[in-house]
Amino acid sequence: MTILRMGYVQARVTDLGKARDHDAITLPLYPTAEEDGELYFKGWDEWDHHSLVLEQGGVGAVKFGFKVEKVADLDGIEARAQAFGDCTVTRMSAGENREVSDGVRVHLPCIDHTFEFYHSMTAVGLEVGTHNPDAFPRHLVGIGAPMLDHALVIGEDIDTAARFFMEVTNFYTTERAQTDLSDNPTTIAYWLSSMQKVHDIALLRGQNGKLHHFAFQTRDWNDILHAADIFAMDDVPIDVGPTRHGITRGETFAGGYTSYRDRPTVIWTADQLAKGIFYHAREIKESFTTVYT
Amino acid sequence: MTILRMGYVQARVTDLGKARDHDAITLPLYPTAEEDGELYFKGWDEWDHHSLVLEQGGVGAVKFGFKVEKVADLDGIEARAQAFGDCTVTRMSAGENREVSDGVRVHLPCIDHTFEFYHSMTAVGLEVGTHNPDAFPRHLVGIGAPMLDHALVIGEDIDTAARFFMEVTNFYTTERAQTDLSDNPTTIAYWLSSMQKVHDIALLRGQNGKLHHFAFQTRDWNDILHAADIFAMDDVPIDVGPTRHGITRGETFAGGYTSYRDRPTVIWTADQLAKGIFYHAREIKESFTTVYT
Amino acid sequence: MTILRMGYVQARVTDLGKARDHDAITLPLYPTAEEDGELYFKGWDEWDHHSLVLEQGGVGAVKFGFKVEKVADLDGIEARAQAFGDCTVTRMSAGENREVSDGVRVHLPCIDHTFEFYHSMTAVGLEVGTHNPDAFPRHLVGIGAPMLDHALVIGEDIDTAARFFMEVTNFYTTERAQTDLSDNPTTIAYWLSSMQKVHDIALLRGQNGKLHHFAFQTRDWNDILHAADIFAMDDVPIDVGPTRHGITRGETFAGGYTSYRDRPTVIWTADQLAKGIFYHAREIKESFTTVYT
Amino acid sequence: MTILRMGYVQARVTDLGKARDHDAITLPLYPTAEEDGELYFKGWDEWDHHSLVLEQGGVGAVKFGFKVEKVADLDGIEARAQAFGDCTVTRMSAGENREVSDGVRVHLPCIDHTFEFYHSMTAVGLEVGTHNPDAFPRHLVGIGAPMLDHALVIGEDIDTAARFFMEVTNFYTTERAQTDLSDNPTTIAYWLSSMQKVHDIALLRGQNGKLHHFAFQTRDWNDILHAADIFAMDDVPIDVGPTRHGITRGETFAGGYTSYRDRPTVIWTADQLAKGIFYHAREIKESFTTVYT
Repeated sequence: MTILRMGYVQARVTDLGKARDHDAITLPLYPTAEEDGELYFKGWDEWDHHSLVLEQGGVGAVKFGFKVEKVADLDGIEARAQAFGDCTVTRMSAGENREVSDGVRVHLPCIDHTFEFYHSMTAVGLEVGTHNPDAFPRHLVGIGAPMLDHALVIGEDIDTAARFFMEVTNFYTTERAQTDLSDNPTTIAYWLSSMQKVHDIALLRGQNGKLHHFAFQTRDWNDILHAADIFAMDDVPIDVGPTRHGITRGETFAGGYTSYRDRPTVIWTADQLAKGIFYHAREIKESFTTVYT
Repeated sequence: MTILRMGYVQARVTDLGKARDHDAITLPLYPTAEEDGELYFKGWDEWDHHSLVLEQGGVGAVKFGFKVEKVADLDGIEARAQAFGDCTVTRMSAGENREVSDGVRVHLPCIDHTFEFYHSMTAVGLEVGTHNPDAFPRHLVGIGAPMLDHALVIGEDIDTAARFFMEVTNFYTTERAQTDLSDNPTTIAYWLSSMQKVHDIALLRGQNGKLHHFAFQTRDWNDILHAADIFAMDDVPIDVGPTRHGITRGETFAGGYTSYRDRPTVIWTADQLAKGIFYHAREIKESFTTVYT
Repeated sequence: MTILRMGYVQARVTDLGKARDHDAITLPLYPTAEEDGELYFKGWDEWDHHSLVLEQGGVGAVKFGFKVEKVADLDGIEARAQAFGDCTVTRMSAGENREVSDGVRVHLPCIDHTFEFYHSMTAVGLEVGTHNPDAFPRHLVGIGAPMLDHALVIGEDIDTAARFFMEVTNFYTTERAQTDLSDNPTTIAYWLSSMQKVHDIALLRGQNGKLHHFAFQTRDWNDILHAADIFAMDDVPIDVGPTRHGITRGETFAGGYTSYRDRPTVIWTADQLAKGIFYHAREIKESFTTVYT
Repeated sequence: MTILRMGYVQARVTDLGKARDHDAITLPLYPTAEEDGELYFKGWDEWDHHSLVLEQGGVGAVKFGFKVEKVADLDGIEARAQAFGDCTVTRMSAGENREVSDGVRVHLPCIDHTFEFYHSMTAVGLEVGTHNPDAFPRHLVGIGAPMLDHALVIGEDIDTAARFFMEVTNFYTTERAQTDLSDNPTTIAYWLSSMQKVHDIALLRGQNGKLHHFAFQTRDWNDILHAADIFAMDDVPIDVGPTRHGITRGETFAGGYTSYRDRPTVIWTADQLAKGIFYHAREIKESFTTVYT
């Protein structure tokens, strides 16, 4: 059983108009639908209908959708989630999420987050097509976010949540931050991968139900600079400027290495955590770890 | 059943001393063993004992090793390969390949290449370690090849070989080059992936038993320039300079997109193949497609 | 007396409509005027009215304009050019070149090229303005050529032409290609700088009156890749793909080091010239040195 | 009269041993001499004997050396400096500064800084040589600082100091930060250039005699990341991580545009100064503007 990817994030924003401008102009993402106060977007290198749904009112994550490879995988997830306990498991119908198939919805009270598993979404095609395609859309202005990449969510009991993702959805731990190297450390954060990405989802110990961030891929370090330039032009506050994360060796929003299930798990200790999170400045910015929504 | 990666390539070289210089100094790779006229190397971001074995005498590929996730996967491969037919399947013992576990060896006469499947190799660890690691080895000079990435092999009947990798090892086709868009085109090349890389192995129609190239990852476009600079300094002929492949959207040796099993397969047609292979120059260099070994 | 820069190039093209598309869409340059079959363009980081004039009919360079710092510099150039001999020197009036001041026109028969010297051009301003400017124009699509950088012109007697630029306009030689390291080598090419650029103009021995190329700056190696991608999308043939020139250490179209008048002159010899021109491929492409216009 | 460049900086450090490690290993610079508690260094792309002198004891700048083009330029500087007033002007002998020619020393009490002007220094040659040179030294580890680029010095009366550099050494203002756009603003900082660099020296209003920083060139944005990585590995605190300066459009330590004397001067106002200094974060870090030495 393989989770293909985190296929969509649904989030609340206080000002849907401003969010539309940011996403459709600054990033830019491609708007694919708008109705009933909900905006749907996809990246230029995605083929499914959407990867981001924004709704008016409040802030924070509503839910995260994971796409499975085969319809039958849903039965396995449902069965293992019920066996796992510590969560509520319900079936959802096709159409409950616009353009999304039927699936399984799991709420994890240990971190107070909701995850949906589905097997298909209406395909709308790649912006560059599939026949002799160009390297990127010719008239792209701005950063150009190709694809949704991962989310970092926050909760109180991330140990149970990490165990859920490993036992129920077959994720593995690529990196882990913990208090120390003793036999009984407290884990501060888990980075979890389904296949070869440095993380599909990461879990940070903190207040239940909070979202730290979700991120779209950029292609490389140069795109990070370009993105930061565009954000500056469009007056988007940047909490963390271009820098390298020691953890997962990525840069802000992107990058890293190709991971494998047999790769040794990387361990970050609390005393070096600043280096891990902000490889260059080596200080934990209060905003990065507490100003989530 | 999941193939983790192409874990090693064994190749013949006409001058082992020169090859040692190139690999250990120009790339550089880390030499991990040398005996009986065989040299063993690993990239700085690899943890298994080696990913490249060079032996004296002639040129070309001896064989390719694929690492499976679980010991039991070997039984599945053996059974499916025997059912597939058109190949010879033998069990190999631990130690037949230095530091490599027992496994299954398959010879595909349709392209005259040998593939080995194994479940473990002696681990020697990451050069940067696993506890609060640096982003790359501090004293790295030269290009710094982190990890073996893929191979492009040549043979007469690549349709059968592609079917083998899809039916026996569960690969899928990310991109395909074909003569035209008719109902009955001839496939010129297949790019095949196990999980999320744009390709683990690619197959090019041509003379049986030939190797086009195998490639180590580089991190990004800037490393490509750096690599080409170093190659020039060390008088290594570069058949293809820094350029982007349209196919798999990669640059020479590296890069591309994150692939998924449900991503639409990209099709390149013969009339646009030059664009696909050399995105910038748009002409097929004779050397690229015929001067294999 | 200081030449500020090569401020404009006037060139002939066989198809003015295609050239307009290429310059205004692919590069893109900013069109600033069009009349009587002449097109005027500027780069986004230029403040003077234009840096490129295209006229219908034939191919090749019509003339090159160099901007001096002070009006009085023109008298010096006129006097030194007349003393230099081997050239025709005429005064030109304001308006002979649209939006360009009066100046001095010099024809060098030794290479059959025409150079104009002027002290001012109508200013139209930077695209990003001068008050709290952005890093580049927000809605830039494509490569974005900031500024005209240099030209490489061809002629039979480049020794005399190089002496002209050194004695009359105070240029100095940054790099030189010559047949060998004997006491009496033949110079194959000169790279000449007025101040700190690796070259404002370069001279290549060959057929009189021919233009090898003129080039706009790009910002860095990543822009070169982006430019080559865009050229591929717009079906612009690229004679030389992204690569590094050993000579002036630049990449195709751009880059290099900051030069100083006391920097030792770099010497390239004929046997290493291929490395100097195409640092990575180390072979002289026939097209690069002979298919000029 | 043309100043070629800021050819050397002499600075005090509290721990000469640590500084040696940082400069010779982390950057790395090339040590060229050591005696009497003074360390001499040059960048790999410099040909004069040194560009940095470190002496034991205290912190801050001792003096800055500017190289002129011709011996006779020294007479002009001496005469104009004396006519300028508000400074002490003395002749210095060859050898007062190791390997440096005779020259003119000027102390500006308005900012309490000392500047030396000299016409030659013992040449030791480029690390890559001048005959068919490689693009960079083959065995370079670490960042590789090619060349000293500029300094940012602090003082109370920067208006007088800026006037000195414009009237006595023929610099011009590329960019200026001022309180507002009124007719009578206070200038907060000047960026001054001799020829085509975005600045050879910059002046910031503040406490007399203080040094904000001096900087070596890096080649591009990618080198900035690499530099920041290496700094992190070597535990060098980085006050400002990789980011773009809006002012001079440079990135930390490097970059920007090619400047010309007729380029419109860019004006930054106090309300946008944060954007100018830290283009991405748009907040003035207290440390950047006050923690000078």
